[in-house]
Amino acid sequence: MQVTSGPDRGQKESLGITVRKKDDLSEWYTQTVLKAELADYSSSGKGFMVIRPNGYEIWELIRDFFDSEIKKTGHRNAYFPTLIPKSLLEKESEHFAGFNPEVFWVSKAGADELADPLAVRPTSETIIHDAIRNWIRSWRDLPLLLNVWNSVLRAEIKSTKPFLRSTEFLWQEGHTSHSTEEEAAKEVMDILILYKRIMEELAAFPVLIGKKSDREKFVGAVYTTTLEAMMPDGKALQMGTSHQLGQNFSKPFEIRFLGENGEMRYVWQTSWGTSWRIIGSLVMIHGDDKGLVVPPRLAPVQVVIIPILFSKKGSAEKVLQRCSEIQGVLQKTGVRAQIDSRENYTPGWKFNEWEMKGVPLRIELGPRDLEKDVVVFVRRDNGSKTILPVGEASAGAVELLSQIQENLWSKAKEQFESSIHDVSSYAELVGVIERTGGFVRSFWCGSPKCEIDVKEKTGADIRAIPFDQPDNVGESKCIVCGEPAKNLVYFARAY
Amino acid sequence: MQVTSGPDRGQKESLGITVRKKDDLSEWYTQTVLKAELADYSSSGKGFMVIRPNGYEIWELIRDFFDSEIKKTGHRNAYFPTLIPKSLLEKESEHFAGFNPEVFWVSKAGADELADPLAVRPTSETIIHDAIRNWIRSWRDLPLLLNVWNSVLRAEIKSTKPFLRSTEFLWQEGHTSHSTEEEAAKEVMDILILYKRIMEELAAFPVLIGKKSDREKFVGAVYTTTLEAMMPDGKALQMGTSHQLGQNFSKPFEIRFLGENGEMRYVWQTSWGTSWRIIGSLVMIHGDDKGLVVPPRLAPVQVVIIPILFSKKGSAEKVLQRCSEIQGVLQKTGVRAQIDSRENYTPGWKFNEWEMKGVPLRIELGPRDLEKDVVVFVRRDNGSKTILPVGEASAGAVELLSQIQENLWSKAKEQFESSIHDVSSYAELVGVIERTGGFVRSFWCGSPKCEIDVKEKTGADIRAIPFDQPDNVGESKCIVCGEPAKNLVYFARAY
Repeated sequence: MQVTSGPDRGQKESLGITVRKKDDLSEWYTQTVLKAELADYSSSGKGFMVIRPNGYEIWELIRDFFDSEIKKTGHRNAYFPTLIPKSLLEKESEHFAGFNPEVFWVSKAGADELADPLAVRPTSETIIHDAIRNWIRSWRDLPLLLNVWNSVLRAEIKSTKPFLRSTEFLWQEGHTSHSTEEEAAKEVMDILILYKRIMEELAAFPVLIGKKSDREKFVGAVYTTTLEAMMPDGKALQMGTSHQLGQNFSKPFEIRFLGENGEMRYVWQTSWGTSWRIIGSLVMIHGDDKGLVVPPRLAPVQVVIIPILFSKKGSAEKVLQRCSEIQGVLQKTGVRAQIDSRENYTPGWKFNEWEMKGVPLRIELGPRDLEKDVVVFVRRDNGSKTILPVGEASAGAVELLSQIQENLWSKAKEQFESSIHDVSSYAELVGVIERTGGFVRSFWCGSPKCEIDVKEKTGADIRAIPFDQPDNVGESKCIVCGEPAKNLVYFARAY
Repeated sequence: MQVTSGPDRGQKESLGITVRKKDDLSEWYTQTVLKAELADYSSSGKGFMVIRPNGYEIWELIRDFFDSEIKKTGHRNAYFPTLIPKSLLEKESEHFAGFNPEVFWVSKAGADELADPLAVRPTSETIIHDAIRNWIRSWRDLPLLLNVWNSVLRAEIKSTKPFLRSTEFLWQEGHTSHSTEEEAAKEVMDILILYKRIMEELAAFPVLIGKKSDREKFVGAVYTTTLEAMMPDGKALQMGTSHQLGQNFSKPFEIRFLGENGEMRYVWQTSWGTSWRIIGSLVMIHGDDKGLVVPPRLAPVQVVIIPILFSKKGSAEKVLQRCSEIQGVLQKTGVRAQIDSRENYTPGWKFNEWEMKGVPLRIELGPRDLEKDVVVFVRRDNGSKTILPVGEASAGAVELLSQIQENLWSKAKEQFESSIHDVSSYAELVGVIERTGGFVRSFWCGSPKCEIDVKEKTGADIRAIPFDQPDNVGESKCIVCGEPAKNLVYFARAY
């Protein structure tokens, strides 16, 4: 789909996406992200990106939802330093070993060499635990439920992709301390379920939830829970993680509290994070050959109103007046509506541009619609037209947006379910991963040896061990070694 | 004011502020910030601090106000990388020379030495200008009005103080590009006036506005406008700056656009920022010997409801029930209300704690108030009591909060005005700066030589050159050299 430039752009340029999604997903994705102006590359080096207003405003909607939900359950926001002394980062040794290869190190402040190098935060467990040691004294100070909105930096060695794998990314990181293991475990799950709601209810795509294997868990955690989405090329994408840290950090950081019975105990902790990857996933999952398709609940602009103007000056004014009235009515109902009254661009050019930018619903309004007192809606997801009396514009928009949200969800769910394969032999597993990708659901004995074998043969790893295990696990065999199975798991290649 | 610990805290500790504000402002300030749990020191090194939820929630209120105001005028948020290549930072040479001594330098990513070192952003002009060069093509892409909420890092050599002077601080930085110099100049002023509204209407203290001298302007700017507050110790504090960058960055960064007449021109740019210093200033200005006093419009908790419980179980339940009803009514009116129903703490202990934390209004509610169907309000700013019928609780709270906001503003304004001194000789200027501090308003010839002379003799510099100059400038003499004056200016020592 090649869209030529507007009549007055000075130079011809390709505004549309020049490849089809199914022909070259990677190129299609990059073009969509850049041309819909969600993000741009930056000069800071490999994997650094700029998030532009069209992308940032999606992030703001995700943030506002999550922020208000966690505040309802007593979580509070705070801010901790960007730079973490090496000596602190080393305190939990597995954690340090895990992050060390991808840390950016600050060695100088102005002209002065630093005695203790400072890490640009790859995650904030250590700096936060160091601070809260002094804030927690007795059981009354618990639970301490903190959240931070910031960015973290991890030098990427793998190939990078805007939103999906970038050197710096925006995220939130939650850090909580509890008086019992059970309460921490409940927190881990509560947050996981809240993350699932963001994906399902806002971003309109399904995820698999479960635990990570020990090999894949967060460095320093007792266990890690995860949400895994499936991209159209058959590769999984980890959408968020919620970790039970147990007392792995509270012991080296000496975070203790006076219990109700007067004894000193170490706190039980969790940490959890989700990032702007959600934006990348929704592009991947919902986009089409015309470009971006944003689910209405995450669309900064939900309805774009395009006046169809002809040269008759009188009618143009009336059309613009009506557009403005409709915008007002929509905004009053809480619909995010914008008018595109730019001159020197044809309506057709504008239709293409807003379609590429993924705005869920378009209103076209010309002199004839004015005469008939109607509004013409066009859906981005399926192109269907709906003509409604002006008086029903607002209720109609709300209903159509809800239908679009629902339709995107249904299509994504169908795609997701068809990506899950049950196999009965190791050879079949290898075949599926190599031919079609997607999730391969099969039994596993629990040994890292078999997990590594699959990884080495296919590049796939265990994305999740579902919380609900089938009754027949006991009678089943590991797909790799044939020994008695411990779990049903999902294998997949991943971004 | 020494407050002993609650009955069940396990150990006695000093919860109140142990020095008087007028006896030792610096110690009083530090204790207030730490004990009201606005902030804490961190282990990241000199001048790094943690902002705790009580402080961060004030920042959220400032952010929400400013964010929604700039969005009304078409500004949009974005995000740019934390790390900036040295080669980019060097592009505007004065800018680089100015920031270089306080930059944190990243030299390694994992184990790899970087060929081009990366600066942890001290401000984002360079990385932003580098990116937007590709976004601006014609006059239709202008104005480009961007804003970023992030943190910046500047290695501090001066003595540091939480919120007032810290190595890393949260702020917003606006970066705009315009097609004409006039439009950029208007943007500089519009933002300055919006900043002024934050200080006056939200934080309830006055500021002086004007231009900086060339010596004090932002490195790389054509001119810098500023807002200057006055602290109780007679030292000024710069609360925000808004810069006309002219074409100083657009030329080296080659940010050009096709004008309406077909010619290529360089854009005119502005940048502007304000930070969490606002929090430090309001502590300094409004606080008293009991601790923090937060102006209602920036108070995360505006009303704390404290049940007065006695052992009679039946009445306790009714009291708590009534507290909860009142909280509901207040929240419905948009008042941020919280109940402190913690057991094992006496009402008196709670009164002291919430006073120290600066909550503007307290409701005390016991069985006798229940019988009489009244609510007792106590104001934080002046300790006065107001008893109102329960039915008037909500209207009463709104009215009292508005009175408190007004009272804090009036007191701050009076203090501010009394800090301004007119002097008739250089000796008098030196005397005032050394004895009382505050602003010294006097005439200046415009030469850096005289400016430096004052700085060297007194430590004071020119904080602002007011936009409105008096008529008699032409007939006046420089306070330092006696040559004809160019401007009336304000000298002060500063944080």
